[in-house]
Amino acid sequence: MNPRVVQTAAVLLIGNELLSGKVAEANLFELARTLRALGIALRRVVIVSDDMDEIAREVRELSARHDVVFSSGGVGPTHDDVTLEAVARAFDTPCPVHPTLEGMLRDVYQERLTEGHLRMALVPAGSELVTTREVTWPTVVCRNVWVLPGVPEIFRMKLAVVREYLRGPEPFVSRAVFTKLDEATLKPVLDQVVATHENVEVGSYPKWFDESYKTKVTIDGRTQQSVDAALGQLLALLPPGEPQRTE
Amino acid sequence: MNPRVVQTAAVLLIGNELLSGKVAEANLFELARTLRALGIALRRVVIVSDDMDEIAREVRELSARHDVVFSSGGVGPTHDDVTLEAVARAFDTPCPVHPTLEGMLRDVYQERLTEGHLRMALVPAGSELVTTREVTWPTVVCRNVWVLPGVPEIFRMKLAVVREYLRGPEPFVSRAVFTKLDEATLKPVLDQVVATHENVEVGSYPKWFDESYKTKVTIDGRTQQSVDAALGQLLALLPPGEPQRTE
Repeated sequence: MNPRVVQTAAVLLIGNELLSGKVAEANLFELARTLRALGIALRRVVIVSDDMDEIAREVRELSARHDVVFSSGGVGPTHDDVTLEAVARAFDTPCPVHPTLEGMLRDVYQERLTEGHLRMALVPAGSELVTTREVTWPTVVCRNVWVLPGVPEIFRMKLAVVREYLRGPEPFVSRAVFTKLDEATLKPVLDQVVATHENVEVGSYPKWFDESYKTKVTIDGRTQQSVDAALGQLLALLPPGEPQRTE
Repeated sequence: MNPRVVQTAAVLLIGNELLSGKVAEANLFELARTLRALGIALRRVVIVSDDMDEIAREVRELSARHDVVFSSGGVGPTHDDVTLEAVARAFDTPCPVHPTLEGMLRDVYQERLTEGHLRMALVPAGSELVTTREVTWPTVVCRNVWVLPGVPEIFRMKLAVVREYLRGPEPFVSRAVFTKLDEATLKPVLDQVVATHENVEVGSYPKWFDESYKTKVTIDGRTQQSVDAALGQLLALLPPGEPQRTE
């Protein structure tokens, strides 16, 4: 199967523990890097508690405004795992036990299977169950919403499925320039580059407490040509002795 | 000055670099822990790009629905630093150069002062400039929005200002129970505790790849009494040999 081409993505991170500061969020960075490498533009991230109405409202909004949405967290057997039911509610669809998942859970847990385990077989009607040769436990994809787990070790495994099924229209091209000039001094240079090259994104990141450079300037675009042109202008406008290095 | 009492908070993290996976978000966890320790409930976190309209819309919404909002990022001298102007736009108020900040910047940069530096003196009309004895560079607070920097080292310093000026209605009380039971087995026990103790929050967190326990159960509330009562019931319902430990 060829991967589906998508332009934009949003992420919904779910869990009281992320908001209460009990747990440091650990999935976003890996997902953001994965999407970037695929050429998919991550536009928005929202973190909410384990509240069904709030998750449903957020899923509905993010799904309508982005090509693909990834949720993380709230899948499991207990009372605070409400993501799948919330996704069903977002799309006003039922969320029955899925026979494929029920069968897999019965194989795993056998006579130890409980009502709680079966909550992990709830799937919004109309979802796809996505697998790869390596990741055989199905990932639920409901319309454009990928329902991913919160446990970081499992979340990372699921990224292989994302990489197999989705890609962006073309890869991003990124360059970075490191300089000892401070941001305020760089500003007129950056303003010129920004004004001349509308099809690239110019970022400026001060580095405090570092001897090797003061500001990192990034240039991002969808074509090598556009990024090279902006980079060329930037380098030509820097004073002698700059930049310290480029990447 | 007595700290202001607030119940709920939201956080707006701003920066293309967070969405493109170039930089791992590094401020939320410390802020979430700070708010938790103060007894302030963090309800929602949103991450957006350096886009003025989007930041303004988000500030307006988060400000209306929470007692206090913290932004991080987008303050500085370059074209992609638009947070203060976006906050002004959110509240439909002008954003002139503030004479106090202009004076401080002129003292620091003297004859090296540029137009870029003066962007760091832009302050939405009607804002307070908040300082403490230790953190003397002012923090801009516009209505209920605290405008904090993105650079993690500076962000952390500013948390001392938050601690001095804000607090929750009362501290949170939190307990945790570690057990070798899996979540699905625990489910009926947790359901009983949840049904009996409506004024506490019960969380359940599976731990994979750990020998010492399988599930961490958390009980959170606003009073010692309510949390102790729920904890007592939970412990009474666990089988012999459990829990492994409590915290």
